Amino acid sequence: MTRILFYLKDFPIEPWRNALVAEDASLEFRMYPDWGEPSDGPAYAVVWEPEPGLLKKFTNLKAVFSLGAGVDHLLSDPDLPEIPIIRMGDDGLKEGMAEYILMSVLMHHRQMVPIASQQRNAKWRRVISKSANKVRVGIMGYGALGKKAAEILRPIGYEIAAWSRRQKGAEEGIKHFTGPDAINAFLRRTDILVCLLPDTDETNKLLNHERLALLPKGASVINAGRGSLIDIQALIAHLDSDHLSGATLDVVPEEPLPADAPLWHHEKVIITPHVAAITRTDTGAAYIIRNIKTIDAGGEPENKLDRNHGY
Amino acid sequence: MTRILFYLKDFPIEPWRNALVAEDASLEFRMYPDWGEPSDGPAYAVVWEPEPGLLKKFTNLKAVFSLGAGVDHLLSDPDLPEIPIIRMGDDGLKEGMAEYILMSVLMHHRQMVPIASQQRNAKWRRVISKSANKVRVGIMGYGALGKKAAEILRPIGYEIAAWSRRQKGAEEGIKHFTGPDAINAFLRRTDILVCLLPDTDETNKLLNHERLALLPKGASVINAGRGSLIDIQALIAHLDSDHLSGATLDVVPEEPLPADAPLWHHEKVIITPHVAAITRTDTGAAYIIRNIKTIDAGGEPENKLDRNHGY
Repeated sequence: MTRILFYLKDFPIEPWRNALVAEDASLEFRMYPDWGEPSDGPAYAVVWEPEPGLLKKFTNLKAVFSLGAGVDHLLSDPDLPEIPIIRMGDDGLKEGMAEYILMSVLMHHRQMVPIASQQRNAKWRRVISKSANKVRVGIMGYGALGKKAAEILRPIGYEIAAWSRRQKGAEEGIKHFTGPDAINAFLRRTDILVCLLPDTDETNKLLNHERLALLPKGASVINAGRGSLIDIQALIAHLDSDHLSGATLDVVPEEPLPADAPLWHHEKVIITPHVAAITRTDTGAAYIIRNIKTIDAGGEPENKLDRNHGY
Repeated sequence: MTRILFYLKDFPIEPWRNALVAEDASLEFRMYPDWGEPSDGPAYAVVWEPEPGLLKKFTNLKAVFSLGAGVDHLLSDPDLPEIPIIRMGDDGLKEGMAEYILMSVLMHHRQMVPIASQQRNAKWRRVISKSANKVRVGIMGYGALGKKAAEILRPIGYEIAAWSRRQKGAEEGIKHFTGPDAINAFLRRTDILVCLLPDTDETNKLLNHERLALLPKGASVINAGRGSLIDIQALIAHLDSDHLSGATLDVVPEEPLPADAPLWHHEKVIITPHVAAITRTDTGAAYIIRNIKTIDAGGEPENKLDRNHGY
């Protein structure tokens, strides 16, 4: 029998309970704070933003599943136990992210930022957009989500490149840039930058004023990874000087974005409330149960956290 | 030698001249009003919104090419000569339209209308969107542009249906509705309605108050065909009553949309200035020259106007 210790705030729990039980009818689902005692026997934690120190107390945990792709909500716990941490990588989450990236790239390619500005000013002026094969999209962060995004962008005809910190596959038709030394060349060739990087020491304010300046004039930036990646003041300066034409931010340094943040009202910035990829309960539950079975059988789960790299 | 009589206002001419000459170096390109005399010999007209009566004077014309997919700018000429009229159908135009439709469908699926409203009010509230396979897209008008749009939408996973006035192909995975009797059933199953119909007597205000009421609650409407299709007051009424959740209009009954039109400022309406599909000069010129060669060889050109149906 599989025992799941569940922790989730600010979202409905029932859809998760139902989806998990639908995958494994014999499941014991325990909602926090009703987690029982370590002596109750082996269990798996399935959590989002749990209280620091909580996981350490449950010495019966075999592994921890994060309910989203990010794990910074776990790594910030100084008492995180030394058991496998598994990031969410279900198809629904990948599809949701791919839809969001595709939509946002198309919006910048087809100049929806200036068109929306014209609408606000009741101005009808035709704008001519480039053919997709003359638009260079750059995907920064090339894990499961980045690969899926590239896959969904390719049929449109974009010229696609990817940057990752460590060598990743070499798909035909996608130019790969690897490691810190390749960042500048990658940025210089990118008209629409798609950021999917996690929050680590290496990525914190990686996109500062100097690096954003390397993007070609008129470029745009989409951030659907973590808000710590971009120096927001530098981004605003480049938008205001017309070096950059627009930005779509699903993540910001402080979430929720405070109501008095001027960023809300910047006419070249599109803000979405961290909704690019929300784990969908049906595919997410299947992913969790599949990986629990893999671990129980002595196998290696998908998307296991590499603590040396922080993602 | 091919002689082209060219007519285009409010757009740059040089890119067209260059693109046409690149396809056929021996081409004689005559920009209006320097069209010469009918006695100069056979010629092809390539036009957008020519003055009424102009084409009739040139009895040396073998055919007329419209620089866009629409031909209403020609059919409104009471003196239109009885020679073949050819609609633009180049790949660039199809791709541009497919990009626009894909972007707009994704924007409604991913709730960018309420999210933009939240941004205006500096409000961070997460919204959960449905999986694509639970979203029913309906394409109204299923010619070359509609087919291309369906093709580019399918990989996202949407449930797609198409309505056309006459029987069109039967692609796997797309439910077809045909003829006036099928409109109501088509509308009742459509969450995101994509309109690509031309301007004819039959389509004028086809989407009136009663028909828009058949769409499911929360549905949205995208019009990238002709503005005459939708009764705008009825659309606004349905948006205001929350029966419909949003609309993206690339075409409106009067273009340019007057600066004092309240439609500009409706918070559920996205207006783009008739830019969904602008003929791209490189692929457009190749299309024109290819069809001129076909006609010269006694063949049937692509996308020839059927005057009985008006498109």
